[in-house]
Amino acid sequence: MSVKPDLRDLFGAVRDDLAGVDAQVRAAAEVDYPLLAAVVNDIVGAGGKRMRPSLMLLLARAFDHDPERVITAAAASELLHIAGLVHDDLIDQADTRRGAPTLNSMFNDGTVILLGDYLFAQAARTAARTGSTRVMDIFGRILAEITDGQLREIFKAHDVEQTIDDYERRIYGKTASLFAGSAEIAAVLCEVPEEQIQAARQYATDLGIAFQIVDDVLDIRETSETLGKPAGSDLRQGTVTLPMLYFIGNGHDPDSVALVRRAIVGGDISEAEYDAAIGELRESDVLRKSLDEAIRYVERAKAALDILPPSEARDTLRALADFAVERHR
Amino acid sequence: MSVKPDLRDLFGAVRDDLAGVDAQVRAAAEVDYPLLAAVVNDIVGAGGKRMRPSLMLLLARAFDHDPERVITAAAASELLHIAGLVHDDLIDQADTRRGAPTLNSMFNDGTVILLGDYLFAQAARTAARTGSTRVMDIFGRILAEITDGQLREIFKAHDVEQTIDDYERRIYGKTASLFAGSAEIAAVLCEVPEEQIQAARQYATDLGIAFQIVDDVLDIRETSETLGKPAGSDLRQGTVTLPMLYFIGNGHDPDSVALVRRAIVGGDISEAEYDAAIGELRESDVLRKSLDEAIRYVERAKAALDILPPSEARDTLRALADFAVERHR
Repeated sequence: MSVKPDLRDLFGAVRDDLAGVDAQVRAAAEVDYPLLAAVVNDIVGAGGKRMRPSLMLLLARAFDHDPERVITAAAASELLHIAGLVHDDLIDQADTRRGAPTLNSMFNDGTVILLGDYLFAQAARTAARTGSTRVMDIFGRILAEITDGQLREIFKAHDVEQTIDDYERRIYGKTASLFAGSAEIAAVLCEVPEEQIQAARQYATDLGIAFQIVDDVLDIRETSETLGKPAGSDLRQGTVTLPMLYFIGNGHDPDSVALVRRAIVGGDISEAEYDAAIGELRESDVLRKSLDEAIRYVERAKAALDILPPSEARDTLRALADFAVERHR
Repeated sequence: MSVKPDLRDLFGAVRDDLAGVDAQVRAAAEVDYPLLAAVVNDIVGAGGKRMRPSLMLLLARAFDHDPERVITAAAASELLHIAGLVHDDLIDQADTRRGAPTLNSMFNDGTVILLGDYLFAQAARTAARTGSTRVMDIFGRILAEITDGQLREIFKAHDVEQTIDDYERRIYGKTASLFAGSAEIAAVLCEVPEEQIQAARQYATDLGIAFQIVDDVLDIRETSETLGKPAGSDLRQGTVTLPMLYFIGNGHDPDSVALVRRAIVGGDISEAEYDAAIGELRESDVLRKSLDEAIRYVERAKAALDILPPSEARDTLRALADFAVERHR
């Protein structure tokens, strides 16, 4: 079982276009300070999954449109994603990402904040190169939605009274908005009818939410080794996820529920208690139930593509949606 | 003597348009969390000098153009300025700004980073509302230049070997780029010939640099009370400014130069030594020399406006340039 299966088969069709995206990302992320430049280069190259650029390029193919401006927009989307990760890792005080040391483990906070800001700026400039004000507007909205989602995560941390609606709104902002906005941008640049733009957006929204639910399940289920970050970190940070909400909702042993609630609230909790709470979540039905919910989102994502013309790229987009859940196996 | 004279006389002509800018800034800076909203509202309202919006509105008037889109762009410029202050205060660990507590003195770092990001996003969305891709491009470039200037400030801190060119490049990024880009945006939206766009940009660049040089002089010359922040903070933080470069350049007592150099390098320096170093700078001719340099920039700024049609607004822009230096009295 691997948490990160190889996406190369799915993205093979757009491999050349992806190389174009990468070149633009690298050029935009260049900085003038040798020490910092080497690290930034590592981060940019560390081979994220390039999930959002691939999705955008597959849409361009599904719409049978010249990908040139979509390649530029995909570079903007990836730069925005990387900028977000730089600030995230600092906020979470994470020491490693995908096994590599984070920027904040090597530089002072001010440098990391400014580098994130610089990458946001380069993302905005790259988006402006599409020459579309609608793209710029969507781009600004994505960044506002992401930060709103993350602020919600901070303000709702350790709150056992929050609802599934709160959770969904939060993960929409944190994860799905960049998927949704990227797909919308790709469709806008392909100049397809508004109905198809909205279908692309719906597909990517549901895919993003499914993706985040699976991430939240993996955070509880996997070991630190497979995740490349500490297991159970959401619970330890007080970030309330879908499995936890299901668990404290109803139908579970009151003592176990009390333990998980105490772990969410945090404060004077021992490592052994955190481990015990994670054990309760792992052994119950809530991970399965959460994956079922993710599958419902995936099915809705796939159905949204019905109004697109049939194509190999459309099939691949559907396979990508399946992958969002299947990577949990 | 006051460090912050009243600008109302200069900006009287654009007072109504400024109210429109303020309304857009406030609407864009609204956030959903009551606690945070109150503080953000204070920051937005704290009555910065609205220097850049005023400059943009005066340009619209000098170009005799309907200010509607310039008002929107001015709100974007001010939001970008405020977002930058939010991150700056966190980076500098400043407790107060204009006498009021900073966000970072009240909230955790993550919240402050994300709030700054949110305000950047709202600035970008506001700029997109101008419907001009050239404006969006300039906007992205401003943000990249600002962060580049600030990164330079960090990487060049405590470096006694830097040159006046290094200093100028740094303050161009940190301060003048937002003046320059804002003026360029205003002129672009007024659809004037390229030559006049570049004149507006040149005026604002020189004004911004003069403004920063005067700030750097005041940081050494004024007391903590008049500044509303600790006096001599640049030297204490290792930020090398023009008066320091003049002082360590040549012509001063070698022991005094050695003291100032040691204070710049920092490390094991007592408060008494910092005070002594600041005393040396105050009592020498370098503050006067720096102000003379600022005056040269002001004269160049005023001359750049020669190709604009004569108008009251043009006269006011020239008076604003004079004010950049005269506020030191």
